[in-house]
Amino acid sequence: MKLTKEQIQEIKDQQSQQNSTKRVTVPELEKVLYEAIQVLDHGFIRVVDYMGDDSSIVQAARVSYGKGTKKVNTDVGLIKYLMRHWHSTPFEMCEIKYHVKLPIFIARQWIRHRTANVNEYSARYSILDKEFYLPAQEHLASQSQINRQGRGDVIKGEQAKKVLNLLKDDAERTYSNYEEMLNERYDGTTIDENQTGLARELARMNLTLNTYTQWYWKTDLLNLMNFLRLRADSHAQYEIRAYAQVMLDTLKKWVPITYEAFMDYRVGGTEVSAKGKKIIQELIKGNKVDLDSSGLSKREWNELMSAFDLKDKLI
Amino acid sequence: MKLTKEQIQEIKDQQSQQNSTKRVTVPELEKVLYEAIQVLDHGFIRVVDYMGDDSSIVQAARVSYGKGTKKVNTDVGLIKYLMRHWHSTPFEMCEIKYHVKLPIFIARQWIRHRTANVNEYSARYSILDKEFYLPAQEHLASQSQINRQGRGDVIKGEQAKKVLNLLKDDAERTYSNYEEMLNERYDGTTIDENQTGLARELARMNLTLNTYTQWYWKTDLLNLMNFLRLRADSHAQYEIRAYAQVMLDTLKKWVPITYEAFMDYRVGGTEVSAKGKKIIQELIKGNKVDLDSSGLSKREWNELMSAFDLKDKLI
Amino acid sequence: MKLTKEQIQEIKDQQSQQNSTKRVTVPELEKVLYEAIQVLDHGFIRVVDYMGDDSSIVQAARVSYGKGTKKVNTDVGLIKYLMRHWHSTPFEMCEIKYHVKLPIFIARQWIRHRTANVNEYSARYSILDKEFYLPAQEHLASQSQINRQGRGDVIKGEQAKKVLNLLKDDAERTYSNYEEMLNERYDGTTIDENQTGLARELARMNLTLNTYTQWYWKTDLLNLMNFLRLRADSHAQYEIRAYAQVMLDTLKKWVPITYEAFMDYRVGGTEVSAKGKKIIQELIKGNKVDLDSSGLSKREWNELMSAFDLKDKLI
Amino acid sequence: MKLTKEQIQEIKDQQSQQNSTKRVTVPELEKVLYEAIQVLDHGFIRVVDYMGDDSSIVQAARVSYGKGTKKVNTDVGLIKYLMRHWHSTPFEMCEIKYHVKLPIFIARQWIRHRTANVNEYSARYSILDKEFYLPAQEHLASQSQINRQGRGDVIKGEQAKKVLNLLKDDAERTYSNYEEMLNERYDGTTIDENQTGLARELARMNLTLNTYTQWYWKTDLLNLMNFLRLRADSHAQYEIRAYAQVMLDTLKKWVPITYEAFMDYRVGGTEVSAKGKKIIQELIKGNKVDLDSSGLSKREWNELMSAFDLKDKLI
Repeated sequence: MKLTKEQIQEIKDQQSQQNSTKRVTVPELEKVLYEAIQVLDHGFIRVVDYMGDDSSIVQAARVSYGKGTKKVNTDVGLIKYLMRHWHSTPFEMCEIKYHVKLPIFIARQWIRHRTANVNEYSARYSILDKEFYLPAQEHLASQSQINRQGRGDVIKGEQAKKVLNLLKDDAERTYSNYEEMLNERYDGTTIDENQTGLARELARMNLTLNTYTQWYWKTDLLNLMNFLRLRADSHAQYEIRAYAQVMLDTLKKWVPITYEAFMDYRVGGTEVSAKGKKIIQELIKGNKVDLDSSGLSKREWNELMSAFDLKDKLI
Repeated sequence: MKLTKEQIQEIKDQQSQQNSTKRVTVPELEKVLYEAIQVLDHGFIRVVDYMGDDSSIVQAARVSYGKGTKKVNTDVGLIKYLMRHWHSTPFEMCEIKYHVKLPIFIARQWIRHRTANVNEYSARYSILDKEFYLPAQEHLASQSQINRQGRGDVIKGEQAKKVLNLLKDDAERTYSNYEEMLNERYDGTTIDENQTGLARELARMNLTLNTYTQWYWKTDLLNLMNFLRLRADSHAQYEIRAYAQVMLDTLKKWVPITYEAFMDYRVGGTEVSAKGKKIIQELIKGNKVDLDSSGLSKREWNELMSAFDLKDKLI
Repeated sequence: MKLTKEQIQEIKDQQSQQNSTKRVTVPELEKVLYEAIQVLDHGFIRVVDYMGDDSSIVQAARVSYGKGTKKVNTDVGLIKYLMRHWHSTPFEMCEIKYHVKLPIFIARQWIRHRTANVNEYSARYSILDKEFYLPAQEHLASQSQINRQGRGDVIKGEQAKKVLNLLKDDAERTYSNYEEMLNERYDGTTIDENQTGLARELARMNLTLNTYTQWYWKTDLLNLMNFLRLRADSHAQYEIRAYAQVMLDTLKKWVPITYEAFMDYRVGGTEVSAKGKKIIQELIKGNKVDLDSSGLSKREWNELMSAFDLKDKLI
Repeated sequence: MKLTKEQIQEIKDQQSQQNSTKRVTVPELEKVLYEAIQVLDHGFIRVVDYMGDDSSIVQAARVSYGKGTKKVNTDVGLIKYLMRHWHSTPFEMCEIKYHVKLPIFIARQWIRHRTANVNEYSARYSILDKEFYLPAQEHLASQSQINRQGRGDVIKGEQAKKVLNLLKDDAERTYSNYEEMLNERYDGTTIDENQTGLARELARMNLTLNTYTQWYWKTDLLNLMNFLRLRADSHAQYEIRAYAQVMLDTLKKWVPITYEAFMDYRVGGTEVSAKGKKIIQELIKGNKVDLDSSGLSKREWNELMSAFDLKDKLI
C-alpha cells in the first residue's frame, strides 16, 4: 500500500481536526479514524465517519427522550436479548462509513450486499491507479477437490512461480496497453501529443480483474453484521475475508457490547434444523443415532457433527 | 406539546454534552440538536443525530482521501450538477436521525417511505400517552369537490364545533375504555387490584387513529429529500406537511448548499412532458396553441399552464 | 367475512379465466387463485398472482438457459443446500402477490416488513368499510405477567363480556360519528343534502385501530419466508399469526420443496450460541452442567433447554 | 452470439410449453419469451418470466377485487395520471425477469441499480466462457474533450486497428493464461493430468473486464423504468444503452399503455428548475433574457435552451 505524499497529508489534516459536538462519540474508534489500515498487498480500509454507539441501540429500542442508558448492566442485557431474538431495527440506528481500496474481483463480491451506499472511483471519468493484486505465496491455493467453490492445498515451487509470473506479466501488459490506448500515462502525462486517446470508458475494458479500485461504502450496523457474518466466515474467499477481519476490529472498537453479542450468537453460533435437534436430543440421552434413520443427508450429518465438534461421529 | 419534568431534564442532559470529535460537525445544526420542536398540537420533531455535511457529498463523489473540499465555489457547482442530473449516491453519504411524535394516521402515511430505519414506541409493550390530535379551527376543512383526495373550504360555526366535539369525545371515551380494559391508568396506576387487565396488544385496538405515537426515524439525505419533495408539497395532507416544513428547516441548517439546489431543482422546479415541451416551444415562438391539437388532456393542459403561471391559458 | 354480490362476481370472473402461457405454472396454487380465504372475523387473504415455482430457484442458481431442472432429486438437494447455507438470491427469483383485508393495528405490524410492494386502500380518497375486528372469546387474553409484550390467561365471564361490549360499542360509535362528520353513509348515500362533509383525510382519524383496511401486497419468496419466520412464530401476536398460517398453506402449494426445507431449517430449527454449543457438548459427553459456570443468563439457559426439550434442566 | 446446440434445444423446449393459467397473460410478450435477442457482439437478453400487465397497475391502484379494468379509456387516463404525478407503488405490482449475457465492465455499471434480484454465473464455481467484447469499428470513440466521462469522435484508420488488436490480443492471452493456471480448458478438458490447477476463485482475476458474464436479473416495473430512464439516455455509455434499447422494446410489448406514458413524461420530458421557469415565462411573454441576470450558470443555461431546442439562444 503506497500513498502519495499528498494523500498522506490529506489524511493527517483530517486527523488533526478537533471539533466539538453534542453527539455521542466513541473515543476508541476516533483513535483510528481516517487511518489507512493495510489489507492485501495494495488495499486498505479507512473508517471515515460513524453515527452512534452501543447506547444508541438502547436509546432507539426504548424510543427514549434521553441517552437511553440506565445502567450498563441493563444495556448489556437488552443488547444481548435483541441480538438473540433477531431484532433488527435497533441495530439499524448506528451507521458507519468506510473508504476502501480493493481488487475489482473482490469489489464484485462485495457489491452484492445491496443495503449499503456506495460511491466508486469512476474509470469512465479518471484513470485507475497502476496497482493490481498478486497473492502472497501462502494464499496461492489449488482448486479444492471436494468443494466446487473453495481452495485446496497451497501451490508451491515451480508452479507457484509460474502462476505469479503470469498474473504479474498479464496485469502489467494490459495496464501498459491501457495507457497506450488512452494515450496517457497513469501519472497524467500525455504519450503522443499528436493523437487523441481512446475514451476512458472503453479503454478500461482491457484491465484485468485484479486491478485495484476504491470506493466509499456506508452501511448501518445491522447490515454491517450481515456482511461480516458471511464474509468473515471461513467459507468466504480469503481475499474478502482479509477485509472483513479488519472491519471486525473496527466493529469491536465502535460498539464493544454489540460485538460481544455478535461473536457469541452469530459468528460462534450455529443453526440446528428440526431433524438435527432430534439427533442432538438422542445424543444427550445417551442413545445411539445413525445416518440412515436420521433423515439427514450425509453432508448434513457431517455439518451437524462438525458444528458440535463430535469428530468421532463424522462419516 | 407537554413534556414531563423528567423528559425535559433528559433533553437538557443531552444538550449539555461537549464531546470532542475528528468527524465533520455542523454548528448550525448542533444548536438545535435534541430540541423538541413543536408540530401540531401535541407532536414534535427532534434531531437526535447526524452524519456528514455538504462537504461529505463532494468527498464521496470524488472518492477523496481528504475532506473533499477544494474551494467552496467548486463544491457548490458540483453539488448543483449532481442534483440537476439526478445523481443519487453522493447524497446517500449523509445521514440524519429524528425522534418524532405524531398522530397514528400520519405515521401510517409516513411509514410508506421504506428506505429508512424506524423504531416505534410499542403499544404491545407499553401504554400509549393520553394525547390525540385535534385540528386547529383553520385546518378543519370540508371534502374538496374537485379533488377526491383533497380539502375544500374551511368548515366554520356550528358544524366546526360539532366536529371538534365529536373528535374530542370519541378520543377521550375510547382512551378511557382502553385504560378500563387494561385495568391500568396512563400514569401506571392500577385501577382494580383484584383483576388482571386485557393484554396491551389487544387493548390498543380500541384507540382512535388520532392518538399520538412516537418513533426514531433515520434516513440518508437522498431519501430525506425524496420524502420532503412529496410531503412538503402543497398536495400533501396538511398534517404531514407540518412535519415536513420543520424538517426543511433542519435540512437548511444541516446542508445549506444542498438545500439551495434542492429548492431550485426539485421543490421549485417542474417537469414538462414531451408533448408539453412542444406547446412551450410554440408559445415562445409566439404561435397560437390550443387544447385540441396539443395531445394533452384538459387536466394536463391546466397543470402545464399553472406550472408556468400562465393564468390566461387556463381552461 | 362478507363480500358484496359484485365482489363475488368479480372473483368468479377472474377464476374463470383460462389463459395460455409459456411460463411455468403451479396447478396446486392455481386451484386457490383469487379465492378469498377467511382470516379472523372479517378479514381475508387472496393469492392474486405469482411468478415462478421450485424449479425457478434451481434455474437461477444455475443461471440456466433452460428450465434448470435436471432431476427432481438433484433439485431437492440443491434447494435444501441453499436454504441451509443461507443463500438468499435464488429465492428472490419467485414472486407472489396477495390481496389482504386486515385490521389496521395488524397492518401497522405488517408494514414493518419493508422489502415488499404495497398498495393500500386510501381513506383519503374513499370511505372505509364498516367492519372492525372483535376477538373471538378464546382469543381474549389478559396481559402476561412474565412477558411484557405477550398474553397470559384467557379472560372469561363478566370481564370478557364487558371488554367485548366496550370494543363493539366504541367501534360502532366512532364509525357512526365518522359517517356523521363525512355527511355520508358507508353505502355512499348523503346524510344532509344541505351540508358539505368533513374532508375524508380528516374524518378517518376518528376510527379505531380495529377497523379493517385492505391492500395488495407483493413480495419475493425470500422475503415472504422472512415474514413467515417471524409472524408464524408462537411469539407473534395471534392476530397476525392467523394470517401467517394461511400464507404458510399457500407457500406449501406454491413451492413444496422449498416449504419442506423452510419448515426443517427455519421454522422447526433453532440457533445455538457459542456458549450454548459448549453446554450441549458437555451434555452429550454425559458431563454435568450448571448455570453458574455456563456464562449464560438464566433466561438464555432456559431458552436453550426449551429448544432441545430438556424440561428437567429448566430452572 | 453463439449458443451451443444444447442451449438452443433448451430454449426451444421452454418455448414449446403450453400451460394453462388463470393469471393475466401478455400474448405480445409471450411471443418473444425465452428468445435470445442479440446485443453487442456476444451478448444477449432473454425475457424468461413476467408477472402482470397494464391492468395490474390499475387493479392495485384501486385495490380491486377483480381485474381492475373498467374501460380501456379510464385505464389509460389513470396510468398517465399515476406516471405524471410520480406515483410509484402501483408500478411495483408488475415484475419481469431477464437472463442477460454482458461484458463484466457493463455488469459493474448495471449492478449499481440495487432494487433488483440477481443471480450471476459464479466464476468461483465454474469456468467463464471464452468470449470478450470487442467494439464494432463505429463505436470506437476517442475521449471527449468537453465531457470528462463521455466519448468524442470516432477513431479510424491505423489507430483503430491498433486498439482493436491490443484489445483482442490481451483478452486472448489473459484467457489462455487463465486456462493454463486452471490447468483446464474452456471446454472442460484437463491440460496436464499430473497437475492440480489454481483455484477458480483466484484464476479468474487474470481475466480482462471485457470478458462476458451472465446473470438472471429480476425487477419490478417501477425500477425497470428507473433503470431505462438512466441507461437508455443519450448520456449513458453506448454499451449499456444497447441493452437498454432492447429492454425498451420488451417494455413496449409487455405494458404498452405504461410505455407510452413513460416515453412522454420521462424519456421525452424534461425538468425545469425554479430559475429556469422564470426564463421560460419571460420568453413566452416575448421579453429578452440573458445569462447574467438569469441566475443560471452557463452550463445550466445551455442545458435549458437545448431542452427546448432553442438553438439560437445557446452561448
